[in-house]
Amino acid sequence: MTQVEMARLGKVSEQVAFVAEAEGLEREIIRAGVAEGTIVLSGNLAHRGARPFGVGRGLRTKVNANVGTSTDYRKIEVELEKVDAAVAAGADSVMDLSTGGDLDAIRKLVLDRSKVMVGTVPVYQAALQAVGRRGSIVEMTVDDLFDAIEAHARDGVEFATVHCGITLEGIRLIRQEGRVADIVSRGGSFITGWMLHNGRENPLYQHYDRLLEIAHEYDMILSLGDSLRPGCLADATDRGQIHELLMLGELVERAWAAGVQVMVEGPGHVPLDQIAANIQLQKRICKGAPFYVLGPLVTDVGTGYDHITAAIGGAIAAMHGADFLCYVTPAEHLGLPSNQDVWDGVMASRIAGHAADIVKGVKGARERDLAMAQARKSIDWERQAELCLDPRKARQLRAERPSTAVQGCSMCGDFCAMKFVSEYLGAPMPAIC
Amino acid sequence: MTQVEMARLGKVSEQVAFVAEAEGLEREIIRAGVAEGTIVLSGNLAHRGARPFGVGRGLRTKVNANVGTSTDYRKIEVELEKVDAAVAAGADSVMDLSTGGDLDAIRKLVLDRSKVMVGTVPVYQAALQAVGRRGSIVEMTVDDLFDAIEAHARDGVEFATVHCGITLEGIRLIRQEGRVADIVSRGGSFITGWMLHNGRENPLYQHYDRLLEIAHEYDMILSLGDSLRPGCLADATDRGQIHELLMLGELVERAWAAGVQVMVEGPGHVPLDQIAANIQLQKRICKGAPFYVLGPLVTDVGTGYDHITAAIGGAIAAMHGADFLCYVTPAEHLGLPSNQDVWDGVMASRIAGHAADIVKGVKGARERDLAMAQARKSIDWERQAELCLDPRKARQLRAERPSTAVQGCSMCGDFCAMKFVSEYLGAPMPAIC
Repeated sequence: MTQVEMARLGKVSEQVAFVAEAEGLEREIIRAGVAEGTIVLSGNLAHRGARPFGVGRGLRTKVNANVGTSTDYRKIEVELEKVDAAVAAGADSVMDLSTGGDLDAIRKLVLDRSKVMVGTVPVYQAALQAVGRRGSIVEMTVDDLFDAIEAHARDGVEFATVHCGITLEGIRLIRQEGRVADIVSRGGSFITGWMLHNGRENPLYQHYDRLLEIAHEYDMILSLGDSLRPGCLADATDRGQIHELLMLGELVERAWAAGVQVMVEGPGHVPLDQIAANIQLQKRICKGAPFYVLGPLVTDVGTGYDHITAAIGGAIAAMHGADFLCYVTPAEHLGLPSNQDVWDGVMASRIAGHAADIVKGVKGARERDLAMAQARKSIDWERQAELCLDPRKARQLRAERPSTAVQGCSMCGDFCAMKFVSEYLGAPMPAIC
Repeated sequence: MTQVEMARLGKVSEQVAFVAEAEGLEREIIRAGVAEGTIVLSGNLAHRGARPFGVGRGLRTKVNANVGTSTDYRKIEVELEKVDAAVAAGADSVMDLSTGGDLDAIRKLVLDRSKVMVGTVPVYQAALQAVGRRGSIVEMTVDDLFDAIEAHARDGVEFATVHCGITLEGIRLIRQEGRVADIVSRGGSFITGWMLHNGRENPLYQHYDRLLEIAHEYDMILSLGDSLRPGCLADATDRGQIHELLMLGELVERAWAAGVQVMVEGPGHVPLDQIAANIQLQKRICKGAPFYVLGPLVTDVGTGYDHITAAIGGAIAAMHGADFLCYVTPAEHLGLPSNQDVWDGVMASRIAGHAADIVKGVKGARERDLAMAQARKSIDWERQAELCLDPRKARQLRAERPSTAVQGCSMCGDFCAMKFVSEYLGAPMPAIC
């Protein structure tokens, strides 16, 4: 039985119990969320030693870090170090997006290395194998595709991105309306090229039941990919994107009917004033299924700082109900990230998620900030370091700029507002008041 | 005559013409904005060689960078390098917040060095002089305070933060309601301590006309400080903060009546879901006077990454109408920033401001992003570097991770979505559609 099926029968699985404990919530809240589909849990038991995570309504906003080789950079050990960096920085999942080297071997090593959920995009492997075997991505067979998906599920992948919602009608819409950046989803571009070359409908849409069978067998979460994710602000919220979302809404309900866990992917580049609408629309169209968003990046010109452009959009998205943030690193739009980029990307997304959790009312979020404010007021530097998202960095920056002031820091030295004013605010008000 | 007075007479000053040119707007728009008070211009002609800037409705969102010595770090040259870093990174103004060493000499050097607007907080100097002359900040005389303000104006400071809005009633309110972090505005804490120690009303409020005379004489913009700026999320939007805002609204109108340029300072730490209300309230209460906000920081626990927590809040604030963002660096809450911190702080705020300018409809903002999207689509790397906010960083990151792919980058190598899909999207749709 899958997590959904158990939850519907009222059963509290080991995963439900673990997630309830981790989130500080009643088990019944988690079970009910899984049963109705507003929460997904890592249920693929083949990923041994991994900690269960939950994603969805009422839970802490989660953060994913992408790692993986490319055709230019194929060293597995380098990518495994990024897994370590991501987990140490506090990522809740890693996606192995490798496209260079022995993909089967890399995936198994990433699964071995990662104690957090692992996601993949199996179409990358199917496409690369098609190039190797038949000379071109567009020569990929339907079996190539489903074989890759099944191989990933069998290895223990907890969630797989599957680009099921792009259809010939969606492609017609973007061609009719016109797009500046066409398609920037890599998997989406492979499927689109395949469809246009072969003059056939999307096999992941046409054979969705076959996909549901695999997902059901391994209790792998389907992460419904957004092939028409806007790659620039000008393409955001266009007909193609929204048409694909409508398809995904249908596919969510079919997954639920099959007892399969499902979440929905979204955004990309979106102007500040369209983010709320995007989230609200997804939540309505997809009946509350968890929403996994990339960014959103709120400008196209932040190259080198796209972890920041994505943190801005991510905070707004999560405030309006996005459940899962895919990080963006400073190297986005430029190349593969370094370990430091991975770290910075995770931190930026964690800040966005946490800021949103405070206003979403997620348990413990506001309390942590209140404790920090109290530690600041009492000028307790060690407690401040413990409470912040990256204690190591806080300690390091403070140590680099020591102060001779008894309690203060090097910014204000002897003229610390908090220290100064407390002498006077503590005393009785003068008689004039 | 001040800029306001000239504008009211229908005169297009040199500064109005310069700002119109820089913003790509009609001179009449700038003149009218200055006349009605929704735009302020750098009008203090004693700052020789400085480029005029405008702040306010319809204009590009501006970014300020704070520099300055502290009691622990008094080296002037180090702070002047930060001025250079801030200006090179694209800051529209620098504030000299020095509290260590010879403040008069530092200020003059900062003014000499900076081609952008310079702001200061004269109460720091008055307070430090009071410590030197009379042993304590609270022994500061009213003349000490106004002498410092006049000295700054005389030297060419374009805008001065003056904490005029904190009154004994405001202090009563925060004591009655209770605050976690009391007062975190340094100048605000000095004034508050002075008021409580001396049992007297705020001299900047009581003698506001004297302040207006000085501001009028030098056409120095009054930046009405927010002493009760919340220092943690829990204190945001409380009675004290809003009471001070009401006072500032009154003082804005008195400044306008006196022909003095004025803007209003705000936020600090504010939860995501209270930012819009803060901006809307300020704009209503202060009749459209330009709003200069610190952050807002959307969580208290982002220590080491507060340029990011501030960029999140700053983007939302600017989207809702904030005109001027005071940067926050990664060193905030820890110590004085390094040159790199200054750079990163300016960049984060510029990203926030630009993202907001796109949705505010500021001229050229959306166009720049569109040009970037087109450069991405045509995989023109040099054009992409030119268009991004920090070309140097974009070029550097790309050079560090070269790709052997003909056009792509090291992230996707041979599997570039944009390159791949364009082959197929360019062809006719298959007959099936």
